[in-house]
Amino acid sequence: MSLPVPAPATMSTVGPVLVVGTGLLGTSLALALTASGVEVHLADTSPTSLALARDMGAGSLRVDVEARAADLGTAPPEPTLVVVATPPDVAGSVVIEQLAAHPAAVVTDVASVKARVAAEVVASAGSAASRYVGSHPMAGRERSGAAAADADLFMGRPWVVVAARDTDGTVLTEATAELAVRNLAADVGAHPVRMAAVEHDAAVAAISHVPQLVSSLMAARLESLDGNALSLAGQGLRDVTRIAASDPRLWAAIVVGNAGPVTRILKEIAVDLDTLVTGVESAALDPGDPALAAPGRAAQIAPGAVGAVTDVMGRGNAGQARIPGKHGGAPRRYAQVQVLIPDAPGSLGRLFTDVGDAGVNIEDLILEHSAGQRVGLALLSVAPAAAAGLEESLTRLGWRVVGS
Amino acid sequence: MSLPVPAPATMSTVGPVLVVGTGLLGTSLALALTASGVEVHLADTSPTSLALARDMGAGSLRVDVEARAADLGTAPPEPTLVVVATPPDVAGSVVIEQLAAHPAAVVTDVASVKARVAAEVVASAGSAASRYVGSHPMAGRERSGAAAADADLFMGRPWVVVAARDTDGTVLTEATAELAVRNLAADVGAHPVRMAAVEHDAAVAAISHVPQLVSSLMAARLESLDGNALSLAGQGLRDVTRIAASDPRLWAAIVVGNAGPVTRILKEIAVDLDTLVTGVESAALDPGDPALAAPGRAAQIAPGAVGAVTDVMGRGNAGQARIPGKHGGAPRRYAQVQVLIPDAPGSLGRLFTDVGDAGVNIEDLILEHSAGQRVGLALLSVAPAAAAGLEESLTRLGWRVVGS
Repeated sequence: MSLPVPAPATMSTVGPVLVVGTGLLGTSLALALTASGVEVHLADTSPTSLALARDMGAGSLRVDVEARAADLGTAPPEPTLVVVATPPDVAGSVVIEQLAAHPAAVVTDVASVKARVAAEVVASAGSAASRYVGSHPMAGRERSGAAAADADLFMGRPWVVVAARDTDGTVLTEATAELAVRNLAADVGAHPVRMAAVEHDAAVAAISHVPQLVSSLMAARLESLDGNALSLAGQGLRDVTRIAASDPRLWAAIVVGNAGPVTRILKEIAVDLDTLVTGVESAALDPGDPALAAPGRAAQIAPGAVGAVTDVMGRGNAGQARIPGKHGGAPRRYAQVQVLIPDAPGSLGRLFTDVGDAGVNIEDLILEHSAGQRVGLALLSVAPAAAAGLEESLTRLGWRVVGS
Repeated sequence: MSLPVPAPATMSTVGPVLVVGTGLLGTSLALALTASGVEVHLADTSPTSLALARDMGAGSLRVDVEARAADLGTAPPEPTLVVVATPPDVAGSVVIEQLAAHPAAVVTDVASVKARVAAEVVASAGSAASRYVGSHPMAGRERSGAAAADADLFMGRPWVVVAARDTDGTVLTEATAELAVRNLAADVGAHPVRMAAVEHDAAVAAISHVPQLVSSLMAARLESLDGNALSLAGQGLRDVTRIAASDPRLWAAIVVGNAGPVTRILKEIAVDLDTLVTGVESAALDPGDPALAAPGRAAQIAPGAVGAVTDVMGRGNAGQARIPGKHGGAPRRYAQVQVLIPDAPGSLGRLFTDVGDAGVNIEDLILEHSAGQRVGLALLSVAPAAAAGLEESLTRLGWRVVGS
């Protein structure tokens, strides 16, 4: 078969692009640009990482480019764009250095928090700050470092580009500088999203940093839980705590860099949690109370408990429904088709072939399996109109479709 | 192809079994027993639900069985086992009724909270309480009611059966009664798990009720979030908030019925959250402080913030790692192979066929897709030893494998 995803046909970015920091993001970006014919120079304080990125074909070392120019007695080619892809805690100082070193270049960074970096740059770089445009590609992997880099890393991902004008209309940056960074994002297959720095930081606090901490707070309760209890765990617990496996040191730097917005949301959750505890506890005040043992009495005695739960869950329903669905449209309701699958190589392949043969597109998929069992359940999300026909086809082919 | 999951070969349950409550669980259980040749009688306060269950082939109406016996002047056949599958708030009173109505039968219920039902039964049923064994099949669907019922609903799921002896050794129940309920669970393909009632309630608070509330608390923060911010949402947020779409009224009844254990865990989370807020806030006390704008200063000024995050996340790592993996073994580390997939019918099918042809079993799968894009990413979890070969095979077949 042909390549499923063709590379963008034309590149707007004109090199040389200098990538400072050859970790996962920097090297992936350099690979993508180089693959599309853009000249890329590489710099990093770690010679090992730098050599690895060069050997992977990410670009030329900036020191080599400068040495060659010095040999020829000429000035080295100046980068049009510098991308700072260092660890977030030094992003600000490296941006300031690069603005000074390359007085004609647009400089961007890819750190996950934007207001603090911008404040550092404005405080120290003077008028050169107008050539700095913060950005944040929403891409990552479980592994880090140049060795995990991939030219396709940004494909299909949002990439936030900080707007040239602040929310109050103040011009922060040259419009052409913003455009250069938007073009960079689009050139590597990402989807540029314009935001003010504070707006970005509030957004990532809500959709990334706080969810991370909430997942960890929940998972921390499992540390000393009975093993028998854990054997009952289902997909719900697995989903809520999946990202609790993330790296604490990496996340501590991110959270500290965005402390204001993160604290604001955590405090809102603490208020809701407090109300919930007070409410639910009212149904548990005296578990030995014989009145409570009468059928249905708990809910009558503790209407506050019921109200506390339905309030937070009702608001949770509303919030969850606002998360955009696939392709950024309004969340669509898919029908779910549930199929039992034996745990053997090729089972899923046969299932998907059969679904494909039925001409049905799978919009989403969850695999469930519970402790001690050699059989799993595939939950296929499909267009509602296609569900009944698919259940019929699969049943005819011998699959055990649950609920059909 | 043949049926992937054969029905159990032999049944230990001897009928008649009376199922009281023909909702999702009751009707599914009745269907499974009837399909295996066990005589099933059905009862429900709703004539509509009852007629639907009968028409689906779940069993005979108990009223018809009794009328036929009266016509013949004989006693109706007595059930050996009564399964109470009513809404949880009336489970206790219905169990008490059934113990009185059928003095030789074992009576069980399937409510999701066990200590409160047991307290009701012990308080009202006298010595008959020794024929009551609480149970809780860990099975459900997004839809409810008889129409959603399925004989395969319990296949491969844990089914908690309350132990005949309490944790302090007190004999609560006849051992034969416990055995009858364990056999019932096994006969319909579930995996019986013995627990004391309080142990069960503490377990489901930790692995189900509190995760539900935590997911809702997080999702409630999205209710008034800017749409632009939501467009950045990734798989992490989706996972943490997936179950926040659950029914508030249903869950309010469950949480109120288990108020004690739920409150205890929520309070532990509140303590952790409070420490986290205090810690993180120390890095945000004065965002205008020029000292904070110096590179890397935030973390130095606020070691408490870093420590607060790494503490809760470190404990979250430990807790998350304890969730059993597939088949109930210790969590295994799988290697992840990431493949870009075009959004077209059959793409996943082709991918899985290619994976199956390579002889590799997919242990888990996550589909990622971000806003506004027509391309997705499949994250395949496979045995570490198989990963490199699979990446090679897929690349050779034209797939874009990220990171290979």
